Order: sequence, then C-alpha cells, then structure tokens
Amino acid sequence: MIFEGSEKKVELVVSDHLPPLRSFGKNFWEEVVEKAEAKILSSISSEACDAYLLSESSLFVWDTYFTMITCGRTTLINAVGAFSEHVGRDNIQSLIFERKNEYFPRHQKTDFYEDARQLNKIFPGKAFRFGQADDHHLFIYHLGKDYAPSADDCTLEILMYDLQGGGKEVFACENQAVDSIREKAGVHAIFEGFKVDDFAFDPCGYSLNALNGKDYYTIHVTPEEQGSYVSFETNYNLAGGIENTLNRVLEVFQPNAFDVIVFRPKNQTWQDHAVTVAGYNKKTTVKQALQCGYDVSYTYHYKKVEDIQGAVPLEDF
Amino acid sequence: MIFEGSEKKVELVVSDHLPPLRSFGKNFWEEVVEKAEAKILSSISSEACDAYLLSESSLFVWDTYFTMITCGRTTLINAVGAFSEHVGRDNIQSLIFERKNEYFPRHQKTDFYEDARQLNKIFPGKAFRFGQADDHHLFIYHLGKDYAPSADDCTLEILMYDLQGGGKEVFACENQAVDSIREKAGVHAIFEGFKVDDFAFDPCGYSLNALNGKDYYTIHVTPEEQGSYVSFETNYNLAGGIENTLNRVLEVFQPNAFDVIVFRPKNQTWQDHAVTVAGYNKKTTVKQALQCGYDVSYTYHYKKVEDIQGAVPLEDF
Repeated sequence: MIFEGSEKKVELVVSDHLPPLRSFGKNFWEEVVEKAEAKILSSISSEACDAYLLSESSLFVWDTYFTMITCGRTTLINAVGAFSEHVGRDNIQSLIFERKNEYFPRHQKTDFYEDARQLNKIFPGKAFRFGQADDHHLFIYHLGKDYAPSADDCTLEILMYDLQGGGKEVFACENQAVDSIREKAGVHAIFEGFKVDDFAFDPCGYSLNALNGKDYYTIHVTPEEQGSYVSFETNYNLAGGIENTLNRVLEVFQPNAFDVIVFRPKNQTWQDHAVTVAGYNKKTTVKQALQCGYDVSYTYHYKKVEDIQGAVPLEDF
Repeated sequence: MIFEGSEKKVELVVSDHLPPLRSFGKNFWEEVVEKAEAKILSSISSEACDAYLLSESSLFVWDTYFTMITCGRTTLINAVGAFSEHVGRDNIQSLIFERKNEYFPRHQKTDFYEDARQLNKIFPGKAFRFGQADDHHLFIYHLGKDYAPSADDCTLEILMYDLQGGGKEVFACENQAVDSIREKAGVHAIFEGFKVDDFAFDPCGYSLNALNGKDYYTIHVTPEEQGSYVSFETNYNLAGGIENTLNRVLEVFQPNAFDVIVFRPKNQTWQDHAVTVAGYNKKTTVKQALQCGYDVSYTYHYKKVEDIQGAVPLEDF
C-alpha cells in the first residue's frame, strides 16, 4: 500500500476586524476541510483553540489565525482558496504555505509549483526552496506583505524518516491499537498538562492533537514499510530553545533521518540552524529571513550508517 | 522551464538464435524509440555497435543486446513492450530496467511501481530499491531468469547533481554552442580513440554518444537552474577499477552530489562499493547480488558544505 505521509501546511492570519475564526463554527470548518478532500474525525477545545483531527492530519483554529496540515492526496490549496474567498483576501494579514518533497509525488494532484502559481494569482507572494533540489527539501510560499508576528509566535516542526527500533515497532501496522500506542510510545506525555485527542487508522497510521491553552502539539505517523514517516509540530516551550523537545521526540521515534524547521519572529538572536544531535550527521543547513516577518531555519540530519546495506526488495509493487 | 533529467534505462539481451539486432535496421529502431515518445536525431556506428542519439538521451544496439536510456517525460516501458512483442518474450535472456528517483516526478506518465507492474505481467521478475526511500535512490527491476554475463560485461553509471564552477558555466543555457562545449568541457577527450556524436539542445541541454569497437560512453546534461543534472555511462576500461574514470568525469562536471552505480558479473572480487572521493562524504553504500547474474553497487556521495545556505528563491514558478 502506498500512502503519502509528507504534508502540505498552511498558516493563515486574518485581520482582527473579522469576527473570531472560532465563531465561524464547526460546519464552516467542515466545508473548508472538505475542499481539501479531507474530513473532520473529532475535535477538542481549549479556552483559546479548537483542534480538529482530520482524516488526513490536523486543523487548529484560534481566533485570528489557523494552521491546517494535510497529507495523503489532499488538495490543501483548494481549502485556502475557499477560505480566502469567504473572508475576502484583503482581510488576510499573513499566509505561509509549505510543502515537503514527497515520497510518491506522482500520485499528488498538484505539485508545489502549481500550488504556488495558484496562490500567486490571489495573493502575490514569494516562493523559496529550503535545501537542495535533489535531496530533502522544503518549499515555502508566503504572501508578499509585511507582517509583524508577536514575540512568542514560534513554531517547531520535526519531520522524521525511516523509523527504527522501538519507534518502528510501536507504530507497525500489526500493532495499531490506540491504547497500546499510547502506553508504549509515550506520545501523550511529550509535554505535561495537555488535553489529547488521537486516532489509529486502519490498517496503518496514527494521529494526535494536543492542546493546552493557546499551545498545541500534533503528531502524524505513516508507518508504511516503503517509507515510514512521522511529523511532529508544536508552538510550545520554544523560548528555552528546541534541543529538549527535539531529543525527546527523536527518542520516541528513532528515525534514520530527520528535518528540523523553526519559525521565529525576525531579528531574535536564536541559532536554531546550529542544532546538532549526537549520532546524526547534519547534511543541510539553511537560514532565511522572510519578508513576512519570520526567520526560518531548516536543517536535515541523518544517521551515519557504516555498514554496507543490501538493496530493499519491493514485494508488493 | 522544467525538464526532467533523471533517466529510465533498459538493458535487454536476446537469444543468439535471433538475427543480429543491428540487422533489424534503422526503421525498426525508429519505431521502438517512438513508442517511448522520443526520436532519433543522429547515429554513428562502429564495427560492433550502432549508437543513436535521441531527442531524449540514447540507444546503443549491439548484435545480441541493446541499451536504451531516456529522460524527460518519455515512456521507455512502452518501447520495451513493443520490442518484446516483436521478438517474442521467450527470446529474451535478460532484461534490466532502472529508474532513478526524479526531480519532477508528478510530470512523469508512470512511476517505477507502475512500470514494474507492467513488466511483471510480461516478464515475471524482481524489483529492488537501492538507497533510502526518502533520499537519493535507484529502482531496478530484472527478469527472474538466471543469466550468465560474460566476464567483461561491466557498466559504470555516474549520476551528477547540482553542477558547480566550470561544470556549471560551460553547460549554462547561454553557452549552448556545441563547439564551445566540446572545447571547454573536454567531453570528447574523456577517453581516447572514440568516435563522437553530440548535440546541443535549444534552449538547454547537451547529449553525447561515443563509440570505439564494442565500447561506448554517453553523456547527458540537463543544466536547468532548478536542478542541474548530468549522467555519464560507459562499459569501457572497467577492468582496472572505476577510480580514474570517476575522477576524470567529476573534474569536468564538478557536481555537489553524485551517485555511482556499477554492474559486474557476479562473484568477481571488485569492491566498487568501497569507492571514496576526496572532498565528498559518502552517505549511502548498497551492494546487492541479483539473480540475473550481476553484482550491483550503488553509492551516493555529497560535497560537505560547512556554510549556512540561504533558501533558493524560485523565480519562474
């Protein structure tokens, strides 16, 4: 079975003249999610945020901004279009659209270049590639508008590839019981005090949303043998640096390779791009200030394998 | 402009009861090439081989085997189907089909899995992935039939990414005059004594076929800014190891990363997988004996960049 784990993501901030986005209600967000060809499976709320678990990843809605992450063959770009039509594009203060290079890109309905062209018609903006074209890389499109994020508006994304050891075992297809995953993986306890909503997919896959006030973390696991993949994302506890969270997450999933993406308001003195992790080589280091108000760092790390590997037999091609 | 440099390749050996493949004539091969949605541009011959330069790469025809390499959006798999229908599948002794992971895979008409399924219907066989799914990798499908290649039946493929320095400059779009490329790049002189046929494409790209008796080398350059790529392949001079040829080719193209693929008849004592090149890190080392009679090594090397890079602005998305 082939399932694309790599995600598309949009973070969109609206003018505070609009009614709170949370007041738009579940039906409205259901329609937005449907435009992406995904479905809402469940939701939890905190005093500041509604978190929807989707058939393909997650949607977090605060009063003036939302973050939507979708994987598989979803068309996130269409959800962005439908939302902006509803609120009016002049009410959009910031829009950041991301796509990671995919495992099975030929099965995608669009590629990043097509998405960027579509966005550019509605929201003239800028597109970047973080990393080498022939290697792990991330595409970012952002609205060509100055924006000043608040000082604590930071995001950490950890994208993990080719799980090993316990990480591989816990999330393997044959072990897909939510209780067993919770207990063995410790994904509920990555941070304390969070309300958690999670789902184990049939036959494979696991998603988790967690909320605490305005803070969230989210995890999406695609354990397929042909390319296991996990994404972790949070806005929590980044004022003290990313190392503790990164190490904790890597301990759970034990990937052979991972990317780290950090967004911080510009002109802070963070050195996220300088991160290193014992046992991993760092292959790519990118740092870029974006006009939309953020400094973004992207690093790609891989486990040095000294052994000669055999080729991987493909059984169910 | 987006052009896919990464190639598909087939090497196919027929029974020696058939008439010599070269006697099938240019019209026959033209039809085979057309099935792949490519065209013959020119040809040269030696006493043992006809070499066709194609609109998308190359075809080499010897009396009992042929090698066809195509890039862009070609459908090499259909050419394989047409050929096998013509000669009868029982007359096929060995078939090896390769695909490198692509830069723009969504623009491909099939992916490797689809190609392998199609092949498997006609020629039950085996499929392998050399390298990690999330990283540089090569797919190989081969016929599930024992085959004993002759002792000198060796092939070296060097796939090069992200040209730098002189390699970048000589092949840049604005410098696409064949004479200037020949003179500056020294591609005619990689080995001595070869007859050469080459072509500079408009607006970009360069292809070269070279023949000497039964030996060949071929070069295909895709200099596009969004992902420059060069492939080099030869069956020449491999009895003395691959190092000299590899270093010579790398000197011309100066890539930021490259893959080396070596096919040798099984049970020889070569250690091609142990190759290292000064200035490059080796990330992946794969060695695999295939039932079809070859030992295959695949290694992926990249230039260690110590600097922090900026993101690459995408201008013409």
